[in-house]
Amino acid sequence: MIKIAIDAMGGDSAPHAEVQGAVQAAQEFDVGIVLVGIEERIREELKKYRTQGLPIDVVHASEIITMNEPVSTAVRKKKDSSMRIAAKLVRDGRAAGVVSAGNTGACMAVTKLVVGSLSAVDRPALAAILPTAKARPTILVDVGANVDCKPNHLLQFAMMGEIFSRTILGNLRPRVGLLSIGEEDTKGNELTKEVFGLLKTAPLDFVGNVEGRDVFKGDTDVIVCDGFIGNVALKVGEGLTEMIMLLLKKDLSSYLSSQLGALLSRKAYQSFKARVDYSEYGGALLLGIKGVAIICHGRSTAKAIKNAVRVAREYCVKRVNEKIEDGIKGLNLMQHKPPQRILIN
Amino acid sequence: MIKIAIDAMGGDSAPHAEVQGAVQAAQEFDVGIVLVGIEERIREELKKYRTQGLPIDVVHASEIITMNEPVSTAVRKKKDSSMRIAAKLVRDGRAAGVVSAGNTGACMAVTKLVVGSLSAVDRPALAAILPTAKARPTILVDVGANVDCKPNHLLQFAMMGEIFSRTILGNLRPRVGLLSIGEEDTKGNELTKEVFGLLKTAPLDFVGNVEGRDVFKGDTDVIVCDGFIGNVALKVGEGLTEMIMLLLKKDLSSYLSSQLGALLSRKAYQSFKARVDYSEYGGALLLGIKGVAIICHGRSTAKAIKNAVRVAREYCVKRVNEKIEDGIKGLNLMQHKPPQRILIN
Repeated sequence: MIKIAIDAMGGDSAPHAEVQGAVQAAQEFDVGIVLVGIEERIREELKKYRTQGLPIDVVHASEIITMNEPVSTAVRKKKDSSMRIAAKLVRDGRAAGVVSAGNTGACMAVTKLVVGSLSAVDRPALAAILPTAKARPTILVDVGANVDCKPNHLLQFAMMGEIFSRTILGNLRPRVGLLSIGEEDTKGNELTKEVFGLLKTAPLDFVGNVEGRDVFKGDTDVIVCDGFIGNVALKVGEGLTEMIMLLLKKDLSSYLSSQLGALLSRKAYQSFKARVDYSEYGGALLLGIKGVAIICHGRSTAKAIKNAVRVAREYCVKRVNEKIEDGIKGLNLMQHKPPQRILIN
Repeated sequence: MIKIAIDAMGGDSAPHAEVQGAVQAAQEFDVGIVLVGIEERIREELKKYRTQGLPIDVVHASEIITMNEPVSTAVRKKKDSSMRIAAKLVRDGRAAGVVSAGNTGACMAVTKLVVGSLSAVDRPALAAILPTAKARPTILVDVGANVDCKPNHLLQFAMMGEIFSRTILGNLRPRVGLLSIGEEDTKGNELTKEVFGLLKTAPLDFVGNVEGRDVFKGDTDVIVCDGFIGNVALKVGEGLTEMIMLLLKKDLSSYLSSQLGALLSRKAYQSFKARVDYSEYGGALLLGIKGVAIICHGRSTAKAIKNAVRVAREYCVKRVNEKIEDGIKGLNLMQHKPPQRILIN
């Protein structure tokens, strides 16, 4: 049975959402759970549920990495953090993957350091699963694991994203786009212009440059970019969604009787929130590491944690990492193939 | 009387919105208008309004730059485009500024080429005026005039944005932020880390790094970034707003009777659209050129054109360019001041 470690102390309402999500996951899927954190608090939380017979273990970790803690401190000083102990379980083969709703930067750093990258991968990348106007979500990669990327990094991000989209989201032939500032081939900055050339010859369904306004259209399955750009794009999206919902709530209530207005705006809000909800896939994926790491939003619900466990499990069952190793080795072979020999008489 | 040239053939509904906006501007403000484009079509459009006694001139230009035309073609081949002739009026002192709802890239290129930059400015930058959750809008600069910027360029963008915010938007002490991927000083990429150091010592109210999610909060008056980042952020915002409105329309109609649903969603949509409407300031400003250029959205209404004329006029009356020259000269002096002499006995 595949085992997934959950950093039980990560999220804003930890360990409540984590433990509830763990119990639900153990009930619904064929998966074992290891809850990592302050043992006493986890056991107390577990008492609220019927857990008899469920494959749930608890591993104690005495420290907690907080949301606003600088990554350097989190990595260097907290050797017994729940995040780090969870990562060690993956390193030591006692869990196949880790789920955390904690500090994203710290989680990426700790996981990369403790678990390590796949041998073919230069830099692991964070992939966000974005809602779109169409039925299927779009993968945006990288959204913050790497800044100042080299062209080859983006090529690898594209391959990892494509494999994830194909294997986990069921896209038979994912369309891969490059985030840029114009649709024409020649538009972009120095980085994207070089990446464009690499993607054109890669064994992917490369659809060309994609503009910011097309990210949420759903016409592209995988969109690649430098982590700085991806992080800004992702955060602009989050901030704007919040602002729009706030303004709409005000507007709706202003021309309806207050009760009806409140009801409607709540309904509209909930209905919309469900559409743009990240919790269906649990969180963002750190692609390219050994094992699998899913980093959930700090405000994750039990449902998000449960779904993160589901995706992490599927990631292992469908051997995504083997496919990534093969895919990137293929890219490397293409790039390093010797130039054609010219015979001179 | 200050004269503003309007590229009458630029927008999606040209010359209709342009001519109507021109007439309204000439009626409401103390400003002269020069409409540039196919004379016959402009005169025909003008007949719809009472223009007797209004200071509106028409200058013929035989060519039109289309929305999807590559910038290089637009600049090199169409020497008699309405955009170019309007820019020439500014160059020759026959107009103080230009307003266009045409192809943004072409308009920036043509204006920079024909009108030229202010002597102190290394690179003109495009400033977008964004709606926020607060009463005042935020200036985001650069949103696409320059990619692969050097640190000093962003410092100049900050100074230009600050002066615009202070002079035109009436912020007594604009708060200036740097778009980055974390609030801590040390977060960001190579470019932003260097810019951070420059902004810290500049004579501006620098509030530090601003994350993507804070762009629409309204806590910062001017946010600076490389044009690639700014363009992606702006377009992600536009695309997401459209998607959200689309989903909300569907959601609202799904649980209300169809008529009430349609009414409500239309109302909510209009009310919201008015809040996030760019038309109050007309469009994005190309800061750092001689004269003034405002580039409006292709879908601009007469109101947007009118307001762009108002802002362009105010820009001249309040001598924004003189302030920009002085401000940037001040920055340059600071950066090139000789190191303190150390006296050795």
